[in-house]
Amino acid sequence: MTPAETSATAAARRHDPDVRGFASDNYAGVHPEVLAAIALANNGHQVSYGEDVYTEHLQEVFQAHFGPRAQAFPVFNGTGANVVALQAVTERWEAVICAETAHIHVDECGAPEKMGGLKLLTVPTEAGKLTPELIDRQAWGWGDQHRSQPRVVSIAESTELGTVYTADELAEICRHAHDHGMLVHLDGSRLANAAASLGVPMRALSTDVGVDIMSFGGTKNGLMFGEAVVVLNPDVVRGVEYVRKMSMQLGSKMRFMSVQFEALLAGDLWLRNASHANAMAARLSAAVADIPGVELTRPAQSNAVFAILPREATERLQKRFRFYTWNEGTGEVRWMTSFDTTEADIDTFAAAVREELA
Amino acid sequence: MTPAETSATAAARRHDPDVRGFASDNYAGVHPEVLAAIALANNGHQVSYGEDVYTEHLQEVFQAHFGPRAQAFPVFNGTGANVVALQAVTERWEAVICAETAHIHVDECGAPEKMGGLKLLTVPTEAGKLTPELIDRQAWGWGDQHRSQPRVVSIAESTELGTVYTADELAEICRHAHDHGMLVHLDGSRLANAAASLGVPMRALSTDVGVDIMSFGGTKNGLMFGEAVVVLNPDVVRGVEYVRKMSMQLGSKMRFMSVQFEALLAGDLWLRNASHANAMAARLSAAVADIPGVELTRPAQSNAVFAILPREATERLQKRFRFYTWNEGTGEVRWMTSFDTTEADIDTFAAAVREELA
Amino acid sequence: MTPAETSATAAARRHDPDVRGFASDNYAGVHPEVLAAIALANNGHQVSYGEDVYTEHLQEVFQAHFGPRAQAFPVFNGTGANVVALQAVTERWEAVICAETAHIHVDECGAPEKMGGLKLLTVPTEAGKLTPELIDRQAWGWGDQHRSQPRVVSIAESTELGTVYTADELAEICRHAHDHGMLVHLDGSRLANAAASLGVPMRALSTDVGVDIMSFGGTKNGLMFGEAVVVLNPDVVRGVEYVRKMSMQLGSKMRFMSVQFEALLAGDLWLRNASHANAMAARLSAAVADIPGVELTRPAQSNAVFAILPREATERLQKRFRFYTWNEGTGEVRWMTSFDTTEADIDTFAAAVREELA
Amino acid sequence: MTPAETSATAAARRHDPDVRGFASDNYAGVHPEVLAAIALANNGHQVSYGEDVYTEHLQEVFQAHFGPRAQAFPVFNGTGANVVALQAVTERWEAVICAETAHIHVDECGAPEKMGGLKLLTVPTEAGKLTPELIDRQAWGWGDQHRSQPRVVSIAESTELGTVYTADELAEICRHAHDHGMLVHLDGSRLANAAASLGVPMRALSTDVGVDIMSFGGTKNGLMFGEAVVVLNPDVVRGVEYVRKMSMQLGSKMRFMSVQFEALLAGDLWLRNASHANAMAARLSAAVADIPGVELTRPAQSNAVFAILPREATERLQKRFRFYTWNEGTGEVRWMTSFDTTEADIDTFAAAVREELA
Repeated sequence: MTPAETSATAAARRHDPDVRGFASDNYAGVHPEVLAAIALANNGHQVSYGEDVYTEHLQEVFQAHFGPRAQAFPVFNGTGANVVALQAVTERWEAVICAETAHIHVDECGAPEKMGGLKLLTVPTEAGKLTPELIDRQAWGWGDQHRSQPRVVSIAESTELGTVYTADELAEICRHAHDHGMLVHLDGSRLANAAASLGVPMRALSTDVGVDIMSFGGTKNGLMFGEAVVVLNPDVVRGVEYVRKMSMQLGSKMRFMSVQFEALLAGDLWLRNASHANAMAARLSAAVADIPGVELTRPAQSNAVFAILPREATERLQKRFRFYTWNEGTGEVRWMTSFDTTEADIDTFAAAVREELA
Repeated sequence: MTPAETSATAAARRHDPDVRGFASDNYAGVHPEVLAAIALANNGHQVSYGEDVYTEHLQEVFQAHFGPRAQAFPVFNGTGANVVALQAVTERWEAVICAETAHIHVDECGAPEKMGGLKLLTVPTEAGKLTPELIDRQAWGWGDQHRSQPRVVSIAESTELGTVYTADELAEICRHAHDHGMLVHLDGSRLANAAASLGVPMRALSTDVGVDIMSFGGTKNGLMFGEAVVVLNPDVVRGVEYVRKMSMQLGSKMRFMSVQFEALLAGDLWLRNASHANAMAARLSAAVADIPGVELTRPAQSNAVFAILPREATERLQKRFRFYTWNEGTGEVRWMTSFDTTEADIDTFAAAVREELA
Repeated sequence: MTPAETSATAAARRHDPDVRGFASDNYAGVHPEVLAAIALANNGHQVSYGEDVYTEHLQEVFQAHFGPRAQAFPVFNGTGANVVALQAVTERWEAVICAETAHIHVDECGAPEKMGGLKLLTVPTEAGKLTPELIDRQAWGWGDQHRSQPRVVSIAESTELGTVYTADELAEICRHAHDHGMLVHLDGSRLANAAASLGVPMRALSTDVGVDIMSFGGTKNGLMFGEAVVVLNPDVVRGVEYVRKMSMQLGSKMRFMSVQFEALLAGDLWLRNASHANAMAARLSAAVADIPGVELTRPAQSNAVFAILPREATERLQKRFRFYTWNEGTGEVRWMTSFDTTEADIDTFAAAVREELA
Repeated sequence: MTPAETSATAAARRHDPDVRGFASDNYAGVHPEVLAAIALANNGHQVSYGEDVYTEHLQEVFQAHFGPRAQAFPVFNGTGANVVALQAVTERWEAVICAETAHIHVDECGAPEKMGGLKLLTVPTEAGKLTPELIDRQAWGWGDQHRSQPRVVSIAESTELGTVYTADELAEICRHAHDHGMLVHLDGSRLANAAASLGVPMRALSTDVGVDIMSFGGTKNGLMFGEAVVVLNPDVVRGVEYVRKMSMQLGSKMRFMSVQFEALLAGDLWLRNASHANAMAARLSAAVADIPGVELTRPAQSNAVFAILPREATERLQKRFRFYTWNEGTGEVRWMTSFDTTEADIDTFAAAVREELA
């Protein structure tokens, strides 16, 4: 037994490697190809803070997906990506329009406000998706010194509710925003799932529709850690490098972030992982659709299934499988799949749902 | 060739694994035992955001080093650790006293001020080390509403200048701070090097002398990424979990941070790595001490060697080896060693110095 | 002609002293008794920054209204009062629940977020008034590190929509907030109008119902400038003096703020002014109620009248009198009265409304 | 007795209008011509928040002094003026170079950092005055993402230490800053005193030497309250209106701020007040210069006299007259004069100094 095995065993012994649940796609580990890429990069010295050859090469990798103007800035996590990106396209007095279910509003402990000094102007939506009409509820008051000036529309693809915008819907939002002098930020922590769902390249949902800046997610699609701020329209973005550093998002051994993205994006791993997770969600959706007492509440367009079932059934199921109640009020639950979910996982779980509702 | 090798090869091909320099300890990669531990943890699902078994176990690991009251909160990087830790021990209107050479003042792009709203009160020092007398230059004005209230003394062990405080010096600083109602934050991004240098356990330089909260470094001592905010005196600290999240420092797949720390700290890897890096610095210091034209400017107490040499010699050397000029004014350079520096690296470099100065 | 008359005449000549409108109570000037009090205080020297005898005496004045524990901190304006008060009762990671029509949300250019780092959690309301049920839509998630922790319920009395909470309604809100470990902030920029409307002392709507901290308004009730942060429950408030200074709200010649409040509050000027403004709103409401085409949209409970009338009529009226369209969508307008509105002003205006709608 | 007299008497009775001291120029009240101007403006309604005729006219008043491109934005106090001005000329990641004795650094409770997110880079100076050489100690590191980017040089005229820059010295600083791509902010809370001291118009020390933006002081020169952010180079300034509002510095009844500035600046009141205060400082300096035991420490170039005298003498004097010890270490005291200081005040005080030192 090597020293590493010894020292790491204490915790690993408490960890059953065969248990997988449906709580979140970030409960999964690292895809083996990503881990292998990390190991390949672990030799000798590389300049720190992003001047390494992996990060240099990463620009080509991102440009192959998002066009020749794309610039990628690896950061640590999704909250970091969002707050860095939004600061880089706003003046101090500007505001961001988003859905009231947006991750930046409900899941980041106030980071946009507290770290970025960003005012969020929220809008209620049907299923996490903004429209020009919904944006207009907050898009007003330019020139009025009393109103934090709306400058960015922030949308997520796919959304927090597992829904997916079509390319046309995104284009319409971008056109509307630009017509009003606003920019568009896309929270793409699950952009790969949306692209896989729609069967289009990722640029069809970002660069091509007019998105200005993007948070691109890797962690939920098989990386160990790492997201990227991706500038799509460099004309409207200022100071990303400084904002990243002052926002505590500059990694020193950045090669290990960049090589993960290379492993994900240089080939088709991003698509394989996302398609698989989506397929598992579809399989689950299909498997439980006809169970009496299960009401599917939203279309399973990416890697999440939302359903309402009786609370007691939920409680019994949660003793056997890990997943979250999404809405305490209605009893709606969320089941997420990931790149490592197996067909057997789905079948076992669907059988358990059927059992607990019998 | 596996798909991972294929996809990651593009950048890796530009990367010569045999090149190592003296620019920074974060130019090095990951220690093999750490990478092995990561691989061990990469199975099945673990609860995200720190409720995994690795992070749970990590508390015992840190407590073995820093005493039973220690609480460890993994974060992404050193700037994040510093800004989270300082926020957790200050009210909005309070200030931090530090050396004018402190990392938080000169190397974090204003993160303490811009993200934490922290006022830094700086003091010039001899070699990066504060003393009670130096602290007193800024420790005044309590109760005066016009003065941001001094609340924390922030010191680094080892310092940015490679110097090391003795345990007695640290105890004196802590006593002085506490006598004035202030707390002590220790930037321990290289605490292992200091402990190795002094031949004492790390708690002798932190818990035992009265440090209240600490940024504990892993990246510079062989981890891939990851630092930890370590609370040593829980009585004076509030809300670390929330501050960490709102400061964009909460990792989702935290098991991969925690297991690295376990690999480093459960056995003696921390000490082996730090001792080796220190020994390489000492070897370098000894090897160049008698070279005419080389003036060693500070004692090599940890893993850094500072020297002044003629600018032309520096320029020629920098074409062959990567390292930084520390002070443009005096021509002082910094040579850093790391866990992976070899004796041959030192001997080759020392020979080159001798050659360029001949 | 004295030099002062000369120098100030240039602008004053453009100013018709007989024109009064219905746009806002802050279009009015200073009540003559307040101006007289300022002149009385303008002699010799007084210690600056609040250690003057006027500010010292002011504590007694406020305590006579709000009870023996009340502490008053004069600040410059209402936004300042709100942002200082809210910072003084929150940790960095905490959030404030308010109506989506709250002044702090819609009219302060993001000051709470951008200066105070405060996350606002908004709720749609019927007429600007929160209820326990509405509060509960945002009052959840304590202990969840991803959620900015709800800590304060902020209400306005009277509200932005001119409605007034009864003492019972306020007590119920305070009880509900306290039961959930939250505090209550009252934006009392028009508290005098509410008290006059209900015929109760101001403490019946603040101290007695359990409000913890208050922004108390003077400017809209006849002062030249000045609001006050009034601490009602000192046990839950920290560092107001420092927060006030660092929030740029500490006046140097504070005697001139304090003596204005003394003029307002030591006698019954606060009540005379507020009652008069309210009476003028009631007179206006009554005078236009039966005009065909005028739909009164809210009860005139304080000094504002809200009505919907045909847009062309509004446009014609706005050429003759200054007032604001409140809701561009519905055509709802707001008519505000102030301490200096005369019965003739009302009658003239009501006649004009009748005329334009004929 | 009118109601106003009654209500305001309580505090006024504790106020001896004949007592004047030497603590600060903001211990003084309001100049009678300013108060008269306020009364003149107190009629009828004016649009709030700066759209009144007084504020409109104020632009001409400021342009007469500072040139046709000058734009004045009244704010409440000096800290507000500084923090608004500095935000309006910096990106989020930029820094401000200033003397370590600067008001923004030592006397604003961290407002620049905590409200503006501004990093201050301080330099020790001889007598509060920067020079190109001193600026260069912090003016470096552009393009380095780890360094908050130096963007503004902030100087004060006159300085916190009562010293005065010549026009040539200011021009040299501005040229140096501009040559390095930096801007110049002038804290002109006592600009009138400097201009009076040098016998030049104020624009000779601001617009004409290349200052980009200025905090212009009124309170210390006879106003009740009010400073102004004055933009001198509109090309480099963004969003002042929004920054002012979000920084809680937008007054509603702004006519009462603007008319004060008009009273001060439309004629020569600014100069009469400043010249008088300066003359009184010179008279005091002369009167005590030969007293054994009094060491004048700085030239009395504006309205402050600095001296070292024996501590016991200081303590005895402070029982009779109010003034501050400036430096506890050396025993240096500061005596300030103001527009209302009389020759008799000076003579009485000088006699007392002589007496206590006898």
